[in-house]
Amino acid sequence: MMASLSRLAALVGGEVIGNSELEVKGVSGIEEARPGTITLVGGAKFLAMAEKSPAAAFIFPKDLQLPPGLAGIKVENPRLAFAKILRFFHPPQDFPAGIHSSAVIEEGFKCGEGCYIGPLVFIGKDVTLGDRVVIHPGVVIEEKTAIGDDTEIHANAVIKDRTLLGKRVIIHAGAVIGSDGFGYIQDQGEHYKIPQVGRVIIEDDVEIGANVTVDRATTGATLIKRGTKIDNLVQVGHNVEIGQDNLVVAQVGIAGSARLGDRVTLAGQAGIKDHVTIGADAVIAARGMVIGDVPPGAFYSGQPARSHTKEMRIQAVAGRLPELIKKVKDLEKRLAELEAANARGNSPEKKA
Amino acid sequence: MMASLSRLAALVGGEVIGNSELEVKGVSGIEEARPGTITLVGGAKFLAMAEKSPAAAFIFPKDLQLPPGLAGIKVENPRLAFAKILRFFHPPQDFPAGIHSSAVIEEGFKCGEGCYIGPLVFIGKDVTLGDRVVIHPGVVIEEKTAIGDDTEIHANAVIKDRTLLGKRVIIHAGAVIGSDGFGYIQDQGEHYKIPQVGRVIIEDDVEIGANVTVDRATTGATLIKRGTKIDNLVQVGHNVEIGQDNLVVAQVGIAGSARLGDRVTLAGQAGIKDHVTIGADAVIAARGMVIGDVPPGAFYSGQPARSHTKEMRIQAVAGRLPELIKKVKDLEKRLAELEAANARGNSPEKKA
Amino acid sequence: MMASLSRLAALVGGEVIGNSELEVKGVSGIEEARPGTITLVGGAKFLAMAEKSPAAAFIFPKDLQLPPGLAGIKVENPRLAFAKILRFFHPPQDFPAGIHSSAVIEEGFKCGEGCYIGPLVFIGKDVTLGDRVVIHPGVVIEEKTAIGDDTEIHANAVIKDRTLLGKRVIIHAGAVIGSDGFGYIQDQGEHYKIPQVGRVIIEDDVEIGANVTVDRATTGATLIKRGTKIDNLVQVGHNVEIGQDNLVVAQVGIAGSARLGDRVTLAGQAGIKDHVTIGADAVIAARGMVIGDVPPGAFYSGQPARSHTKEMRIQAVAGRLPELIKKVKDLEKRLAELEAANARGNSPEKKA
Repeated sequence: MMASLSRLAALVGGEVIGNSELEVKGVSGIEEARPGTITLVGGAKFLAMAEKSPAAAFIFPKDLQLPPGLAGIKVENPRLAFAKILRFFHPPQDFPAGIHSSAVIEEGFKCGEGCYIGPLVFIGKDVTLGDRVVIHPGVVIEEKTAIGDDTEIHANAVIKDRTLLGKRVIIHAGAVIGSDGFGYIQDQGEHYKIPQVGRVIIEDDVEIGANVTVDRATTGATLIKRGTKIDNLVQVGHNVEIGQDNLVVAQVGIAGSARLGDRVTLAGQAGIKDHVTIGADAVIAARGMVIGDVPPGAFYSGQPARSHTKEMRIQAVAGRLPELIKKVKDLEKRLAELEAANARGNSPEKKA
Repeated sequence: MMASLSRLAALVGGEVIGNSELEVKGVSGIEEARPGTITLVGGAKFLAMAEKSPAAAFIFPKDLQLPPGLAGIKVENPRLAFAKILRFFHPPQDFPAGIHSSAVIEEGFKCGEGCYIGPLVFIGKDVTLGDRVVIHPGVVIEEKTAIGDDTEIHANAVIKDRTLLGKRVIIHAGAVIGSDGFGYIQDQGEHYKIPQVGRVIIEDDVEIGANVTVDRATTGATLIKRGTKIDNLVQVGHNVEIGQDNLVVAQVGIAGSARLGDRVTLAGQAGIKDHVTIGADAVIAARGMVIGDVPPGAFYSGQPARSHTKEMRIQAVAGRLPELIKKVKDLEKRLAELEAANARGNSPEKKA
Repeated sequence: MMASLSRLAALVGGEVIGNSELEVKGVSGIEEARPGTITLVGGAKFLAMAEKSPAAAFIFPKDLQLPPGLAGIKVENPRLAFAKILRFFHPPQDFPAGIHSSAVIEEGFKCGEGCYIGPLVFIGKDVTLGDRVVIHPGVVIEEKTAIGDDTEIHANAVIKDRTLLGKRVIIHAGAVIGSDGFGYIQDQGEHYKIPQVGRVIIEDDVEIGANVTVDRATTGATLIKRGTKIDNLVQVGHNVEIGQDNLVVAQVGIAGSARLGDRVTLAGQAGIKDHVTIGADAVIAARGMVIGDVPPGAFYSGQPARSHTKEMRIQAVAGRLPELIKKVKDLEKRLAELEAANARGNSPEKKA
């Protein structure tokens, strides 16, 4: 597959610098750039790499100038342009419509046009799929689940009964959507299971990482709103509500009934206590442990999480603690000497 | 499905307040209560919600009084009553006895009455199931495993060879029981694998969450005792022993050969070092990192985990550290002035 | 299966102490030793257990002397000898060559000699296997993947398209190799997915734990080098490069583009920031949170991770913080008294 710079520039709304008829044969990262490809110069610090690079052309931001002799495409948002050109050279895999003969499908199945149901898939009673849904091998979809157009479910994922998935949702391999929430009542020293009879609702354009677990609600629904992206190995507890366009990085845990506003970011391994509320646009740093509500727009970090500014001050001070203890010991000694001297009605010199 | 208040009250051993012939058509949570349903008023703080609620009736504790005009059931343990009424309206799914034609079952298979073996299941040699065992689609059960009555294994879970599962055990989707422990010997800079030839034993009434991993023992058995409940994405290392009626919340990691007593609680994302012992009834707070033995009944938190009282004091102080550092600097300055004055054989005033 | 001490000693290059014709019938751990078996006395602290043990013989290090009357094998590296004797008594399961009739295999499949393809496996187009590869039930291997000799993939694992696996690799149950990296571009408040078109390369003798996730590179490859061992539920981000002979313990998270040298150890639940470099032979303690480069050979711990010596000093001091605050308060009071006294032009005694 080949494309001229002018064609690619048109694709991303950019301006060609250099030979617009130059033919590019693919995309590569700046660090492993290959001859004939186009790559990304995200900022000034990559210019030196660009000069030595075997790449044929470069995507770069408007406020930068390419070294003389290099060709490329100047754009507003170079990373976005890079992503679009990647997609151009690597179009999504085309799955042939049809149901593989080894799939097991129970009664009441409804399916739109152009769906692909792979080998060894199980689909329970009364499941409904929209158009162009792709179900990879080994997936289990339980009864009364409904799935919107263009959604893709990767291998060996499990979608439990009565789940609702929107359009263009991506569920990665091994994820489990709709497992029971962790709810028990103590009864005479033992744990009595609270039946988990709610469901999971996942809106349009959500992406769920590999081996993620999203628990169904006790009653009602665990809800993940439009556009939210969740990385691998994340736990979403029962009755959680996640707003639109959140970013939830790998290994985060969100406990039951927590509520996240829109555009919240939870960095890797963060933990959110049950029933807390996190305001829109808040950011929780990696490993942040949230144990109370977080106001909109706040940046929290630490264990327990507090305002990042405050946490940074505490961390800076923590490194100086051993020194502080020594200092206080020294102060004590000197003060005691002064007190002793004064007690003798005299300064140390006078007593000599 | 409908039930009168008097019938539900009999079910949970409670007393009807209001019209005992009132017919209720389901259960809902207090926050999303639907007309015609019964819901839970767990304590005084929910009374205001109850007054505005469209629900038909309320489960509430003995020490509370319902606002006038509301009907309901007064009970000792309202959450337990709520759970029982939930179960009444949502009885566990009934699986038809039988083995799906797409399941692959090797020789030596023994099975009690009323078992359901779903589509695309694999069962290895010499596996034994009790009565009414439910095996969901895509599950893999390896050879010489034995499973007790009324146990349920959800979709795509893997039970490795020679595992023992008790009665009424629930294994959620994607869990892996009996994977190799992480054991190597250094030999000339490389890692030589220690064969993991033990097994996993899981006793009656244990519940294991989605995508959990429980490693088999090097020799002997990794053991999870009766009534313990484990949430999603938890790691249980080789040769671990977990006592009865533990609660292990999501994303906890328990390293090899750790021993937990009965009724221990490990909150979310806690970590337990290898070979430590945690006494009965101990509680480890969320994210607690246990690096030594914990006495029975203790409440530990922090990283590393210590007595929660002590950790709370440290956390309280941590926030005041920057201020403390300033204070010590100030003390130093004032002390130096006093010392200088005394060194001049005089108080500051005298020298004037 | 039985073996004489002399035969076992020859196997591990050790010296028999006691009756070399003594027949041993198996191996057991020192804590649950069974009669007739050989067990491990790793050091002096296990001698008392050995004296009371029902075991028939003991593997022990050269610098130790067995109590009189006990038989055994004296070796350089007793844990390595134990591992080898374990393997002798528990040889790896022998899988019959062949492809199960329920497996679904697409065109372009190439396979060496002696491969076992279990039931309900799916293998996509143009997959190549070496000799003696073992694919357990329920595994999904996507197109254009290549797998080396003697590699074993456990039940329900997923190997995504174009992955390269070396020789003698072990992938445990439920692991997902080659899922999409977590990469998005902000575009007008929404997240635009960056296509993840790279792959995963796993070299010889690597072991990957149950339910681990390894993301494919955006472009290029996520790389895990020869001999590295990864425990359960670990997350490896896109474009990460892990050196040779690393040990990565359970629930560790390694963010995108991090680079680990050879023989690095990451203990349980550690977290590595994206784009950092960790030098060869470095050790990160359990729960260590690495937010910057780590020099070769360093031992880091804490959140954020720093030199372990420094972190230990800080931790030791942290426990004394409440006491320190009291001390500073006391100092302040005493200093104020002194200052007041001096201000009166007098020592406390003089004013009396």
